[in-house]
Parts: sequence; structure tokens; C-alpha cells
Amino acid sequence: MKRLSDTTIAAPATGHGGAISVIRISGSDTFRIISLIFVPALDCDIMKEGGYRVHYGQVLHNGEFIDDVIVTLFRAPASYTGEDAAEINHHASPYIQQRMMELLIDNGAAAAMPGEFTMRAFINGKMDLSQAEAVADIIAADSEAAHRLASTQLRGGFSREIEKLRKELVSFASLIELELDFSEEDVQFADRYAMTGTVIKIKDLVDGLVASFRLGNAIKKGIPVVIAGRPNVGKSSLLNALLSEERAIVSDIPGTTRDTIEEVLHVGGLLFRFIDTAGLRDSDDKVELLGIERTVKQLEASEIVLAVTEATDSAREMAAFAGSVAAMVSGSGTKIILVINKSDKISDNTAGHLEETVAELTGIPVVALSATLPSGIDKLKESLTASVETGRLDNPQYIVTNARHYEALRSVSESLQRVLDGFRDGIPTVLIATDVRQAIYYLGLITGRITPEDILGEIFANFCIGK
Amino acid sequence: MKRLSDTTIAAPATGHGGAISVIRISGSDTFRIISLIFVPALDCDIMKEGGYRVHYGQVLHNGEFIDDVIVTLFRAPASYTGEDAAEINHHASPYIQQRMMELLIDNGAAAAMPGEFTMRAFINGKMDLSQAEAVADIIAADSEAAHRLASTQLRGGFSREIEKLRKELVSFASLIELELDFSEEDVQFADRYAMTGTVIKIKDLVDGLVASFRLGNAIKKGIPVVIAGRPNVGKSSLLNALLSEERAIVSDIPGTTRDTIEEVLHVGGLLFRFIDTAGLRDSDDKVELLGIERTVKQLEASEIVLAVTEATDSAREMAAFAGSVAAMVSGSGTKIILVINKSDKISDNTAGHLEETVAELTGIPVVALSATLPSGIDKLKESLTASVETGRLDNPQYIVTNARHYEALRSVSESLQRVLDGFRDGIPTVLIATDVRQAIYYLGLITGRITPEDILGEIFANFCIGK
Repeated sequence: MKRLSDTTIAAPATGHGGAISVIRISGSDTFRIISLIFVPALDCDIMKEGGYRVHYGQVLHNGEFIDDVIVTLFRAPASYTGEDAAEINHHASPYIQQRMMELLIDNGAAAAMPGEFTMRAFINGKMDLSQAEAVADIIAADSEAAHRLASTQLRGGFSREIEKLRKELVSFASLIELELDFSEEDVQFADRYAMTGTVIKIKDLVDGLVASFRLGNAIKKGIPVVIAGRPNVGKSSLLNALLSEERAIVSDIPGTTRDTIEEVLHVGGLLFRFIDTAGLRDSDDKVELLGIERTVKQLEASEIVLAVTEATDSAREMAAFAGSVAAMVSGSGTKIILVINKSDKISDNTAGHLEETVAELTGIPVVALSATLPSGIDKLKESLTASVETGRLDNPQYIVTNARHYEALRSVSESLQRVLDGFRDGIPTVLIATDVRQAIYYLGLITGRITPEDILGEIFANFCIGK
Repeated sequence: MKRLSDTTIAAPATGHGGAISVIRISGSDTFRIISLIFVPALDCDIMKEGGYRVHYGQVLHNGEFIDDVIVTLFRAPASYTGEDAAEINHHASPYIQQRMMELLIDNGAAAAMPGEFTMRAFINGKMDLSQAEAVADIIAADSEAAHRLASTQLRGGFSREIEKLRKELVSFASLIELELDFSEEDVQFADRYAMTGTVIKIKDLVDGLVASFRLGNAIKKGIPVVIAGRPNVGKSSLLNALLSEERAIVSDIPGTTRDTIEEVLHVGGLLFRFIDTAGLRDSDDKVELLGIERTVKQLEASEIVLAVTEATDSAREMAAFAGSVAAMVSGSGTKIILVINKSDKISDNTAGHLEETVAELTGIPVVALSATLPSGIDKLKESLTASVETGRLDNPQYIVTNARHYEALRSVSESLQRVLDGFRDGIPTVLIATDVRQAIYYLGLITGRITPEDILGEIFANFCIGK
């Protein structure tokens, strides 16, 4: 991934199709290359003035017309990458895009690698590593909640929290290091009891962040929901009823690719993702169903299980079913909602009574509905959003969405645990200092204060080209 | 399609995916709408100065962050549409795009209909109708030749030719109309003989354009090629050999969608499109093959037939096969290339001799090759491009690529034929004048001097949204 920073790079930045496309160029040679392919000639003053001007003209290749374009020049450091940069806005034809790229490369540009523009932005100090990662996340975000988390990270809110923790650890470390300087004298400057309190406080914050990853990751990728229940209780029609309205909303939004993704549902700014659990859905035998390990894993991995029963079942049967599902997911943090389907088969009174009884028996949310009754579907949607701790979204800077950050924070937590163990066991300060340094190192990985080269390569390889 | 021109319209202008997306806005309310959703505030001077400035900032909705964007303002008439216009360059997320569009619409913009930006450009006199149509063509162009034809049309070369013809017809018409003014006196001002000469000259030019449509349309859509021959002569391996090299070239070009299109080949800036002729390929019985009407139609509709024989056939058999294909396509303008496949089975000398003999017998180009010999494949490619009158591409303004223009020019030609018939039969000048006016009317349709409303609707409905 590493490349001399004096290379000028170019890549298409927009997707396929549409009316116009954009090619992005960045590097010290940008203006020279543009001047070679663009007419009318941009005079030196404009090139020097540079930043934030658009120019209408033609791109020519040996006098041959390639396209009418709009060129925007960005002068370093006032650009995305922090380098001299340009965007060529041309007609959205793959043929023209190809000719443009050939022309740029012939004139000295190199085809950009995935994420190379954003990597340069990071290297040139335009954003920290966690913000750079948020660029990919904000592009991928497909719900209000996911967008909000990515926005907070992009704008540096998350980085500031990490930096705050890091500073607390650094000032703690300085106390420890001070002790080390005088270690021959076997002095303990700081009160071990107060120190333990400080570490516990920091570790609690870190552990809170670690714990938030389950929610953050679910929001980022869509909250996984499994619909469980014996055959013919109406799981498919329930899913269809949930999705049908959504599909209608989605279909008239231009530019969404939603229609290719099956079985996702937006409620209250959250994206719910219905996982296909063939094993659960098709099994005729409840015992067999309970025994299938794969099914258990799917249930545990889901954020929510909709346990579907029929209105003609007894309250006791419903509670038993809910109980068996609860047993499967116990300890995993998975929420259960009991759905009494086909409630149109019984009276509203009976349905209301059933809801109450089963809720009392099981202590979990119960929704009586039928796939044809919108009111029941609305109630279920409310129950779905209520199962997600949306309250925590009020402080999105405290939610981890990135697996790399999660790993780093876990390492921080482990290092801090070793520090606490060390205090308890009276381990020499020199060993404790190592663990403290390690905790600081792992926190630094998140924002990119410390950036082993292979980490950079890995992060940006997941970007799309042109970003 | 019609809409009050004081509506401000907005639409995503780039395709799906990628790193950035562009939303286009046009109309008198553009700057006001931008000022409502964009921070930092754009002061009045900037708004007035307007054109050709980019602004970095955020789009907010009730204080909630939507995205970091770059906004480019274009002040009327210096914009694509000729109206006040803007482009919002945002992160390529369908969610953000949707929020942006909602925000723009909430603030008074209307979602643009397909082609509405270009239609406004036409209505505001930024381009004529043929140029507007070329915008769609240049986006769709996927070969050098198709791009060249669309470029010439976009830049007005074709329009100028049509306008030249129109002017000649108008000055001719003025002579006729002059006669009409004095018709009671039964005067013939102009020499009928000279007039006939003028009309013949104009009609020849029009007929030349009409005839060019076959080539123009083939270049625009890809030149249709049929591979014919009895089973097992190696048609598939020949096709694969033709395509394999091409595929390798295509695969490392970013942004091409070529891989989803089966069986197309770029040679010498031309796109050849291999038509699936199952009937031809699969038939075991040559007689049956010859008798299939559908096959004949496919052959006639193709620009080129590769008539494939085996090196072990006799020269006489080859000539006979070429003759039967020629009989099928006679009068259609379809070219034939005789391919002697599996030439590795005979010596180079024998192959060379066969080529000569069969070429003499048939008078059509003959290429001896084997699917594994690159030299033979290269020779076939040369022969393919030679079959297309590429010389005519030196004057792309004389080539019609658009079916609507073709129809109009045919009507012009028919009207002019009636004028000639009228002269010959001594028809009264008043009737001749009608036909001349009709010819002028049809020419005017091409560039949009005359624009019945339904024509506009039809043309722009075929555009993509955002163009």
C-alpha cells in the first residue's frame, strides 16, 4: 500500500450509471497534468489561486475531443487529501471514463488504490484514523442510527472520547514512571489504593465501550432478528406484513439499492435484518428444533427473537415455547418478543387477556396480532425498537461500531485488568508499568497515534477505489 | 413532461456505488434552497457572484448533521441548464442521498423527471435538440467510433449540416413562394430545369444521410455479426479466440461494465456485437438451415456474416457455402467474410493457396486461420474492420445515428421526391410549395426549430434521471 507521496493518483470516484461521473486526482503534479489535457488553458494565476474554483471546458487527447467537462481545482492544503487535487466532472460513460483514466495515466498519474485518497488525508493530518474509517462507514450507513454513529465518528466525537481516556492513562502512567525513576530507593509515591480507584474508573469506561460494540455493530450492519416458531404459525406472512409497507416506501426513492436486499426493515431510524433460519422454519419437530446446535447459534447471534405462536394455543403452551427459546439464548443478551399470531381467530378481549396472562407468566413482551391487522404490526414494530437500547444513541460517541476498535479496547481492558491484578498481588512497579504502556499503545491504535504499517494497509484495502 | 419553468428541480446525477455522489439542482430557487440547508452561510456577495465557485461545508437538517459536502454554484446563464444551478457533492451513501433529496424537496424543490435538466438546456437555448439527444448518446457510447459520432453531434457538427441543408431548402422555397405571390399572373420566375437540379442536389445529400443510418446505427449499437456454418466447424472456438484477448484487456479497466455484456468485441475503435443465432448454429441440416426464414432475417439484419468452413473442405464446397449465404443476404447490404477454420490441419502453403482460390471463385474476402493461431485471428479482425466503411467516419457529421433523425430525413426525401415528380408532371406551383414546406418542416424537427410537444416528451423520457 505504501507509495511515494509525490506520486499523483487518479481514480473514478462515482459509481456506475447515472448522468455524470467524477474522476478524482490528487498529488503535487495534479495541476500540471490537468493543464496538459484541458482546454481552454488555465492561466498561471488561476493555477496559483487554485482552490475552490470550477472551470468549464474540454478534455482533449492529441486534439481529439474526449468530453465536455467541469474541472474543480483544490489547492493544498485545502483539499480532501491535503494535497493539490482536482475533480473532473464528465458525462457518465464507461468509455469516456476509460479514456480519461488512460489520458491521466499517460500524463504521469498513477491509478489510485482502494482508499488511497483517504489514506493520504490521514497521513497529511486532515483526519485521524478513526475518522478515516468513518468515511467508509458513512458511505455504507443505511439507517438513521448507523448514519448517526458514523457521523459522530467522522466528526471526531468518538476520537475525542478515546483521546480523553488516553490522556487519563498517560497522566496515570507518568506517576508510575516517576516511581520507576526512583525504583532503587523502593519508594511508593502514589497511594496504591487511590491508584486502583483510578484504574478501575478508566477500565469501567473502556469496558462500557467494549460492551457497546454489540449494539454498535448491530446498528451498523442491521439488527439481526430471527423469527422462530413451529410450521404454519404464519411466520412468512408475519414477515411479509412487516415488510410490505416498507417495500412500498423504499420503491419510490430514487437511487436506493434496497430492492436487491431481501428482508430488511426500517423502523424508527433503525435497520432490522431478518436472518434466514431454514432450520428453525422448516422443522416439524419441536424437540428436534431445540436440539439443533446450529439453530441455537443463530438464535444467540441474533439481537432479537420473535417467538411466534398461534392464538389458538393455550397461554401455558405459549409460555412453554417462550421458555424453551429463552433457555436456548440464555446468557447471550438476545431479547425475545412473543408474538401471538392469527389473533383475528379470537376476540379482541380474549387476545388482550392472553397478552396479559402470557406476559405475566414469562416476563417478556407479548404482542397479539394478525398479519392482516395493521395495528398489531405497528405494535410489534414498537416492541422491536423498544428492544434496542435506543436511549444510548443519545451519546453516540460512547458506542463502538468498528471491529478493529473493539479488539483494541478489549486489549486495553485486559492490560488494565493485569494492572489491577498487579496492585492486588504486589507485583513490582516495573511490570505494572509495562501493562500501563500497553494499554496506552492499544488506545493509540484507534485514532492512529500509533500506526503499524500493516494496520494501515488492512484498513484502507477495505475502501472502494476513488475514496 | 411539461412543467412550469419556475419550478426548481433536483435529482441524483451519478450512478450507484462509488465514493462520492452528486445531486444536481436547477431553477430560480436554487440559491435560496441551498442557503437553507448549507452551513457556513453563503453571504449575499457569493450568491450574486455565483457562477463557478465551490464551497465546502455541511448539510444540516434542523441542526442535525447529514453530510460533509462540496457545493458548486452556477449562476444563470452560465450553467448546463441556463438557469441558476448547483451541484452537491456528497458521500456516496444511498441513505445520505435519500435524506438530501427529502431535504431539498421539503424546501421547495421538485424531483426532476428523466432528462429534465437537458430539456431545460434545450428550452433555454443552450443546445439544439439534436445536441440534446447526443447527450444521451455520448453517455451510452461504448466504442471510439460511437463516441466520435456522438461527440460530433453534441458539438453541433451534425446540426450544422442539417442547418445548411435547411437553408438551401429555404432559399429554394423563397423562389417558389415568390411565384405563388404572382400566381394569378401565371408567371414562372425560375427555370424549372435549374430548380430540378437544385432539388436533386439537396435530395442526394439527404439520401446520403438516410443511407448512412445503417452504418451510424450499427456503430452506435455495435456492429452486428453473425457466425454461420455447419456444426463442428469450430464456430464457438472461433468466437472464443476472438473474444479471449479482448476480455483480458477489458478486465483491468476500472469502471467498465463490459463483463456483463456477452460476446462483444472491440477492434480498431469499433464495437462488434455477435448475435446469437441458435438456429444457424445448431442445425445439422444445411438444407433446413437455408430454409429457415428467421435465420435469413437474422443474416440480413447483420452487418457482417462470418461464413465458417473447415480447412478440410474443398475449395468448391467453400465457394458453394459462401454462395448460399450470399443468396440469403442478397440485396440487404450485409457483407460476407469466408473463414477457413482449423487451418492448422493443413500446411501453410495449402492454406494460402485455398485462400486465393476461394477468393477468386467467390469474390469475397477469405481468411484462413485456426482458433489457436493469433496471426489468423488478427487477419480476421482486420477483415472485420475493413468490412465497415470506416473511411466515412472521417466526416462524422454526415452520419445519422438517431432513429428519429432517420425518420425525419426519410420524410424530407419523400417530400423532395414529390417536388421532383411535380416538376416532371407539371403540377401547379401551389402544390409543389406544400411539399417544399413539408421538407423544411421535417428538417426543422431534427434540430428542434420545430418542436411539437409530444416529440419533446418522447425524446427526454428516454434519458436517465439527473440528466
